[in-house]
Amino acid sequence: MTATAASLVPASSTDLPPVERRAAMPGGFRAGGLAAGIKASGRPDLAVIVATGGPAAAAAVFTPNAFAAAPVRLSKAHLSASSGDARGGFGWAEAIVSTSGSANAATGAAGEADQLEIARHLAAATGVEVGRTLHLSTGVIGTRLPLDRVAAGLDAIVPTLSGDHGALERAAIALRTTDSVTKIATTSVQLPSPDGTTVAVTVSGMAKGVGMIHPRMATMLSVVLTDAAASPETLWGLLRPAAARTWNQLSVDGDTSTNDTVFVLASGASGAAPVEPGSAAAARLGRAIEAIARDLARQQAADGEGASTLITASVTGARDDADARAVARAVVSSSLVKAAAHGRDPNWGRIAGAAGNARLADAAVLDAAGLPAAEAAVRAANPAAIDATTLRISIAGYLVFDGCAGGPVDFDRAAVRAAMEASELVIALDLGLGAGSGEAFGCDLTEAYVIENSEYTT
Amino acid sequence: MTATAASLVPASSTDLPPVERRAAMPGGFRAGGLAAGIKASGRPDLAVIVATGGPAAAAAVFTPNAFAAAPVRLSKAHLSASSGDARGGFGWAEAIVSTSGSANAATGAAGEADQLEIARHLAAATGVEVGRTLHLSTGVIGTRLPLDRVAAGLDAIVPTLSGDHGALERAAIALRTTDSVTKIATTSVQLPSPDGTTVAVTVSGMAKGVGMIHPRMATMLSVVLTDAAASPETLWGLLRPAAARTWNQLSVDGDTSTNDTVFVLASGASGAAPVEPGSAAAARLGRAIEAIARDLARQQAADGEGASTLITASVTGARDDADARAVARAVVSSSLVKAAAHGRDPNWGRIAGAAGNARLADAAVLDAAGLPAAEAAVRAANPAAIDATTLRISIAGYLVFDGCAGGPVDFDRAAVRAAMEASELVIALDLGLGAGSGEAFGCDLTEAYVIENSEYTT
Repeated sequence: MTATAASLVPASSTDLPPVERRAAMPGGFRAGGLAAGIKASGRPDLAVIVATGGPAAAAAVFTPNAFAAAPVRLSKAHLSASSGDARGGFGWAEAIVSTSGSANAATGAAGEADQLEIARHLAAATGVEVGRTLHLSTGVIGTRLPLDRVAAGLDAIVPTLSGDHGALERAAIALRTTDSVTKIATTSVQLPSPDGTTVAVTVSGMAKGVGMIHPRMATMLSVVLTDAAASPETLWGLLRPAAARTWNQLSVDGDTSTNDTVFVLASGASGAAPVEPGSAAAARLGRAIEAIARDLARQQAADGEGASTLITASVTGARDDADARAVARAVVSSSLVKAAAHGRDPNWGRIAGAAGNARLADAAVLDAAGLPAAEAAVRAANPAAIDATTLRISIAGYLVFDGCAGGPVDFDRAAVRAAMEASELVIALDLGLGAGSGEAFGCDLTEAYVIENSEYTT
Repeated sequence: MTATAASLVPASSTDLPPVERRAAMPGGFRAGGLAAGIKASGRPDLAVIVATGGPAAAAAVFTPNAFAAAPVRLSKAHLSASSGDARGGFGWAEAIVSTSGSANAATGAAGEADQLEIARHLAAATGVEVGRTLHLSTGVIGTRLPLDRVAAGLDAIVPTLSGDHGALERAAIALRTTDSVTKIATTSVQLPSPDGTTVAVTVSGMAKGVGMIHPRMATMLSVVLTDAAASPETLWGLLRPAAARTWNQLSVDGDTSTNDTVFVLASGASGAAPVEPGSAAAARLGRAIEAIARDLARQQAADGEGASTLITASVTGARDDADARAVARAVVSSSLVKAAAHGRDPNWGRIAGAAGNARLADAAVLDAAGLPAAEAAVRAANPAAIDATTLRISIAGYLVFDGCAGGPVDFDRAAVRAAMEASELVIALDLGLGAGSGEAFGCDLTEAYVIENSEYTT
């Protein structure tokens, strides 16, 4: 109850392995990227990644949007068919193709046929089975992909595929839409090898971010590659909790895309022994995947459309981790908190107001009699536990609200405003109720976001 | 399946009685408003309404925000004590006080004591019991109300209370914060009188809007007065479904306030017979209340912070009304749809994407294993039914997407952009799945919203 502002920062991220933001190709993969002419700008827009040693174990999470794009549906179908997992969460994959400039969402049966044609062309060009291809696409919703350009691009890209680091970077560059920077991260952990020693495995990831970023079960486009060995289902078991703590805690603008997808592929090329569920090695690989996911999510938040500040909400003292994540997510998703961050305004009242809405986001779903519908009732009965008399809030390291001491705290407004000029703003909340912690990532709301999104298709 | 764009507009609002936007004081009330000095600007900031014939039947809906403000909690307590309704939804009330300029939220025990002191002063000045007072407040979260100024204001306002129309308008003006216009609406319906004839009853409402507008169970500050007669519980039964179809379908910025409150007071002064639950008279009074609620919600949306366009999403052909409302609400809440509206960009892909997210708003609440938590599972199992192959979308009367005909429709982009220049933008979606309909109200996202909210407390 006497924690200082500094102690409000949670420990949840400190047990993750260190991450570097450079391209490091794990063993067992080749990649490439180029400009195929999908984007009018002439920027790179086509990426291919191939597993060199045959099908790799693959796990995925996808958007729950009812208008899931054609590439999402085809990827799910291929994963399902290869593993028997009806949810399409995991399976075997040998090639990934990413197109940028057109989302191939809400394009109907024609869009489905287009994506299948891309799968066939990719399969023919790389020599893999059609059913072992995975698909990503991003761009304007409702436009068709230019199949002739994609086909010519695939023919051009396949001979350039390489296992060197530059090839991975070219693929990451081609994943971008309006991203101002290429988002890439790598880490390495020691895992047991079959001969009883250990071996270093690499986990590398790439992502595209920018706008329509408010991932749910899923996340924005992202690919994580590792040369560790694991079954598809084991890999899926590592991906889901990592995504829950990282990508599902990311919000740029509250809009969940039709194309959100994360793929994790494990080639096994490191020579490490296959990780078994529940083992120490699985935990270590899981933390490595989470470290990459967290860093990419932070890169995505920092590069949100029009953003000038990364906002990290760190919540401690929650009843449980799920409550902490809900509160953190509510804070970074608030338009008013985001606008205040842009103005360097230490408006803690908006932070408290947003925190008080955690888990209530859809409680307005009422039945015909104006009473909460079934799901709203469940939610209303289980809001995040939060109490104004135990809550403490700090902004950029300065304590601004202390519920244990009556509430508002006198603070040096000019000093806090100055601290808010940094490229990352940490908003820390100690709920004072338990040991749960969690974090969420967002960005400020700026005039540039409005301008950028007022004129996109036209 | 062959509906034209025009037929996409639902009939849900056409059976409501017509509304006029003028102050019309129902019988049995006196009101007043003045500048008490709470706001630094010197604008009117204190309103009082008193029932002249003793306690009036009262019903209320409040914010579910965990940081519900002191006036919300005191009002609930008074309603509960007067009726025995533990939820604080209805009871008896004789005086309402509204302060503007300070929300009295997150102000701890001191803020609670302040609000009780205001109740005592109001009771003494008006001669009503403390427990028959209801309270509204709006403004900056975390600041204390200046009790001396409020007390002096109450002493000054009580002698001015009047039953004329101008007095009602003065109260509505004093309810405003940064509202650019006073929000008021009135309607009249014929109800049975005890002598077997009918009598005209008046239903008038006022509201404040602007920002932090995303009501859930509740709504923003609003007071509806009627001279109809009804028991508190009957009145509550009429208010809840009306609020579900109107205020709970309103979003300016996705932030739910700590102070949202609607009060409906019925004086019975018209001489109409008390309406009985389930009667035709109750239905007629309910539609009158809904007509006022709908019109005030539309005024609030049109006057959203920085807004230049009212956005109405009209959904027909849904599986049921709840689905229709969820889809409509998802559309008007989307930052990307709001920004596109600002740019007069007929970007139907964002509308489809937002519609596809209906009811998924918090599906990201995952448990520690990365699987959906209980409430998320309920929601995920029951998303709004929507199908790209039966969906039709029109923007400002122009059909832009027809899932029955393969999806995207060729349309005259320049003509649609010109039509989007109107002060109201109607986005109509026919889901093609059933007979459910509903609507939601929002506004465009503008640079002015960002600028206004970047500098508020400082």
